[in-house]
Amino acid sequence: MINQTMEQLGKAPSKIREIFAYGCRRRKEIGEDKVFDFSLGNPNVPAPKEVNETYKALIDSSSDVYLHGYTAGVGDDSTRAAIADNLNKRFGTSFQAGDLYMTCGAAASLKITITALCCSGDEIVTFAPFFPEYRVFTETAGAKLVVSMTDPDTFQIDFDNLAAAVTEKTKALIVNSPNNPSGVVIREEGIEKLAQFLEEREKEYGHPIYLITDEPYRELVYDSDVSVPFVTKYYRNAIVCYSFSKSLSLPGERIGYILVPEEVEDSRDVFAAVCGAGRALGYVCAPSMTQHVIERTCGLVSDLGVYRTNRDLLYNALTEYGFTCVHPDGAFYLFMKSPEPDASAFCEKAKAFELLLVPADSFGTPGYVRIAYCVTTEQIRNSLPAFKKLAGVYHL
Amino acid sequence: MINQTMEQLGKAPSKIREIFAYGCRRRKEIGEDKVFDFSLGNPNVPAPKEVNETYKALIDSSSDVYLHGYTAGVGDDSTRAAIADNLNKRFGTSFQAGDLYMTCGAAASLKITITALCCSGDEIVTFAPFFPEYRVFTETAGAKLVVSMTDPDTFQIDFDNLAAAVTEKTKALIVNSPNNPSGVVIREEGIEKLAQFLEEREKEYGHPIYLITDEPYRELVYDSDVSVPFVTKYYRNAIVCYSFSKSLSLPGERIGYILVPEEVEDSRDVFAAVCGAGRALGYVCAPSMTQHVIERTCGLVSDLGVYRTNRDLLYNALTEYGFTCVHPDGAFYLFMKSPEPDASAFCEKAKAFELLLVPADSFGTPGYVRIAYCVTTEQIRNSLPAFKKLAGVYHL
Repeated sequence: MINQTMEQLGKAPSKIREIFAYGCRRRKEIGEDKVFDFSLGNPNVPAPKEVNETYKALIDSSSDVYLHGYTAGVGDDSTRAAIADNLNKRFGTSFQAGDLYMTCGAAASLKITITALCCSGDEIVTFAPFFPEYRVFTETAGAKLVVSMTDPDTFQIDFDNLAAAVTEKTKALIVNSPNNPSGVVIREEGIEKLAQFLEEREKEYGHPIYLITDEPYRELVYDSDVSVPFVTKYYRNAIVCYSFSKSLSLPGERIGYILVPEEVEDSRDVFAAVCGAGRALGYVCAPSMTQHVIERTCGLVSDLGVYRTNRDLLYNALTEYGFTCVHPDGAFYLFMKSPEPDASAFCEKAKAFELLLVPADSFGTPGYVRIAYCVTTEQIRNSLPAFKKLAGVYHL
Repeated sequence: MINQTMEQLGKAPSKIREIFAYGCRRRKEIGEDKVFDFSLGNPNVPAPKEVNETYKALIDSSSDVYLHGYTAGVGDDSTRAAIADNLNKRFGTSFQAGDLYMTCGAAASLKITITALCCSGDEIVTFAPFFPEYRVFTETAGAKLVVSMTDPDTFQIDFDNLAAAVTEKTKALIVNSPNNPSGVVIREEGIEKLAQFLEEREKEYGHPIYLITDEPYRELVYDSDVSVPFVTKYYRNAIVCYSFSKSLSLPGERIGYILVPEEVEDSRDVFAAVCGAGRALGYVCAPSMTQHVIERTCGLVSDLGVYRTNRDLLYNALTEYGFTCVHPDGAFYLFMKSPEPDASAFCEKAKAFELLLVPADSFGTPGYVRIAYCVTTEQIRNSLPAFKKLAGVYHL
């Protein structure tokens, strides 16, 4: 008998990937521009031009051993120093290269951190809506995921729910802001209150509660009055899981990092456990050439103008048609209330208009759908009549 | 309390990496060409020139979504088809794209396969000498590694030892040929006998015993009379774990695959478990641009001439000086008997001559050292007087 947990995980692939696969088939049937696929968080905006230029320049000017050889398991020293410098400049922090562990993207960052921290029977708390793989990563590490519902109107933290969710068994809390799938940013007062709450519970229980911040969308905010608080400045035991997938539009290249600040309790032990977990999970090093590119481009961000345009176009049109949407501060997802209680049934009806939306049940919020607007603005424009017809089905 | 297993794994980094780090420091102290570092399997031979040309051509001609976007979790379809075609052409097999799962290199291939197959309490058998991370990957998957010693003269399979090692609890056997660290290739009669033995045990126990072939060195053989049998042709329940790290000199890029042939018992369930394990371990997809490069270059191999020259130069000199070495058929390691029982003590004495060798204790073969000759031929030539002096210490 092979491992049944793994077999079942493999046979129940993510709903998102299923819809995306349907979209690929459907495009072949009726044509590329006839299908309005909003399923996948695959950035449509290209990487900053410097990224591809740097790849080419490095290929032309470097030895293959430097370019394609192993780096240390923790990552290339110069890359880690460049990232630390960039963070310090932007956030007034004082991180060192040695606080950073380079990873194969956000999923690896999270899985490694969870594996490093958790013992069997531990609990990890997160806020709904949440990225479904949190459950997979946590449960296959022998721990339990405890979900705390956010405020149903604002999707900000509901501290009464949180107070009930955090117990002596809580090893860590995962926070994802800007949020996938709601687009909501937890404001400074929320982070301050969260830090205070966790510190009180740490004192009460006599052990640290780590705050894992899953931040692939940190750079993706669109309004001058919205900023993403840098969590390590508010809470001592914060561990940052970052990915360049979205900020540099490199999701397939699998590149990110884990930041374990010095202030974290037993910081060097935690960092060692991160190294050990990376090793145990089969991560030898993050892709080398891309690490060297990141050293030179980690201060850049893809053109956010397209996302802002898309967000405004879509949010304004859908609310005008009568849909109820959460106003997204960041990320590239619009979170919409399903006009009928069963979001899957709603998504099936949307399919009839070639609109591919993702029901948010697996994100812990039934009755909502996620619309990934990291697509061409043209696709958004062309899809609007279909959304209008869909609204008509529900007499909105 | 954070996870103690992970913390300990992180604090006990591989002996090889420690020696390599010493070499880096030492080179800064006394000069690049004064240190003879034979510690790391980091290929010195560049990638075939087509590899870097393909990277650049793809950057110039492809959209960023194709180049840097997510591929399917199993990998890009065209890449998988190209690899299947290449294998079929070379080995007369009939694999399909759907039999292949793209990975972030050999370590990921192995970790994913072990996680997919093993339940708690299962045993995995391997032959000594073996790559030390087998133990890490197996034990952190809740299974036990059982080591079967090979013939001490030839390092071919000792079937008496194997008969004692394989029991009803054996879920799989890992074979690594050409072998790291011995360089030995298991000959066709060995593979045939192994297949027959495993089939008998499968019948006796009434369940499959998977043969995991760890093959990063498959292409690295140097003599016309030595060929590496393609294991799936000899045994039904064989699963291939491959990496392009050595064949294309791309170890840092993290690219490889798992091949689950159709003939494997419950092949589609095993493949699903591989997908599930990849997901649970945080692998979203193998690096995308490198997947696209592999589609176009998977038939190539780096220049093996340098390795052959290095092997002959080193083997001939060291045996002439009186050392006892295993003649390496392939890979790029020379396996040498330590002239004193304690190989670590011998390696310390070698250090006095700036020779950085790896004691093979962690490979399950105390009393031996590994010499990685994937270095410049110049380094080999320059190191010979030091080896001669080292032999003198032992009056060889």
